[in-house]
Amino acid sequence: MSAPYTLILLRHGQSEWNELNLFTGWVDVRLTEQGKAEARRGGELLAEAGLLPDVLHTSVLSRAIQTANIALDSADRLWIPVKRSWRLNERHYGALQGKDKAATLEEFGQEQFMLWRRSFDVPPPDLADDSEWSQVGDPRYAGIDGDVPRTESLKIVIDRMLPYWQSDIVPDLRAGKTVLVTAHGNSLRGLVKHLDGISDDEISELNIPTGIPLVYRLDEDLNPVGEAEYLDPEAAAAGAAAVASQGKK
Amino acid sequence: MSAPYTLILLRHGQSEWNELNLFTGWVDVRLTEQGKAEARRGGELLAEAGLLPDVLHTSVLSRAIQTANIALDSADRLWIPVKRSWRLNERHYGALQGKDKAATLEEFGQEQFMLWRRSFDVPPPDLADDSEWSQVGDPRYAGIDGDVPRTESLKIVIDRMLPYWQSDIVPDLRAGKTVLVTAHGNSLRGLVKHLDGISDDEISELNIPTGIPLVYRLDEDLNPVGEAEYLDPEAAAAGAAAVASQGKK
Repeated sequence: MSAPYTLILLRHGQSEWNELNLFTGWVDVRLTEQGKAEARRGGELLAEAGLLPDVLHTSVLSRAIQTANIALDSADRLWIPVKRSWRLNERHYGALQGKDKAATLEEFGQEQFMLWRRSFDVPPPDLADDSEWSQVGDPRYAGIDGDVPRTESLKIVIDRMLPYWQSDIVPDLRAGKTVLVTAHGNSLRGLVKHLDGISDDEISELNIPTGIPLVYRLDEDLNPVGEAEYLDPEAAAAGAAAVASQGKK
Repeated sequence: MSAPYTLILLRHGQSEWNELNLFTGWVDVRLTEQGKAEARRGGELLAEAGLLPDVLHTSVLSRAIQTANIALDSADRLWIPVKRSWRLNERHYGALQGKDKAATLEEFGQEQFMLWRRSFDVPPPDLADDSEWSQVGDPRYAGIDGDVPRTESLKIVIDRMLPYWQSDIVPDLRAGKTVLVTAHGNSLRGLVKHLDGISDDEISELNIPTGIPLVYRLDEDLNPVGEAEYLDPEAAAAGAAAVASQGKK
């Protein structure tokens, strides 16, 4: 079967708040040294596989941009065109942003904790505008139509991500470009859900490991040809298991 | 006098071939650790001055892109939109690319050496297409109308740079954006020549130091209001003197 289009998804490596086990969402934390090493390895995997991106799409969060910059440096593709959009951002975690995951689990119990983390359409409570972790007033979101989010469910993430997929990423694929998307656990889960036709229920079980390129071959209708493949399958399986166990410190 | 527009020019820091005292041109070498430190300092100077770029323009050479990535990281502006163009590249140094500057000076004498380095419209001899330092066939230049350069004078650099200034940078300025241009000694000399109305003869005396933001305030007609200012004038003067003495190892 013909698969003319190549799409590469890359989730950012460990951030400062991943390491501290805090809910991050739209809070603009940086990569740790481990996260930078993951990004370098991600770029090396691309180069070793001969998968050279022609264009990059990132969120506007620094940890995804750092990941892209480092990965493209190690793949010797720093020079490719870049587009950034808030629509590729991580899920806004509402009032959970800045909270310790283990403490949140203890405070609210396993059921409520997993509902917020893994339900499809139940967002956490709104983040207060006067919170130090609010993005209200951040100049990088001056261009958002309507308001900056105060919280998001995965459903909301998908609803604001897919228009960008259609308007900006699909045209690059149709132009024959190898497209790299460097983003976050939930924006990428949303894209994988869309591409693989995963149900609202089943998506809760899907975990995307950090720093390992996930390669889709797509047909003329942008349907996957065969299963998407991680460039380092063993590391990917271990990484997905690590993501699944988050919060259980 | 009203100066509604702000333009910031930043020349990349020390590269591997600056350190080795080789003619670089379009050869895609990386920053040294010193060059990375210069870029970080450049970003800190921007942040300290409250000069926050809204949009970035870079060449397609890695040392300029690394400089921009590092400077924007230290200024906490990684998320701004980016555009890259070969039209902002360093001057193509023709057959001198890859040659030692001091050895070239000795081989050809002071007069010929300074003619190639500082004359306005005398390019060095063409670089052979089968040279290991040729850019013929490099995928990043697939989009160039006509051929990849084999050599360039400063005049040729200006002729291919100014169309990008008009088509891409000026519209960003007119939209009220603070524009950062991260590029090279000769593409930036060409832009300064244009902005300050420097003659073909006098431009040979102008040296732009590395890693220090140069800030232009421009009026409605894009004419400079007052003199452009380096954010660290003392370091800029020392840096310009160091550039002027290059080749005299």
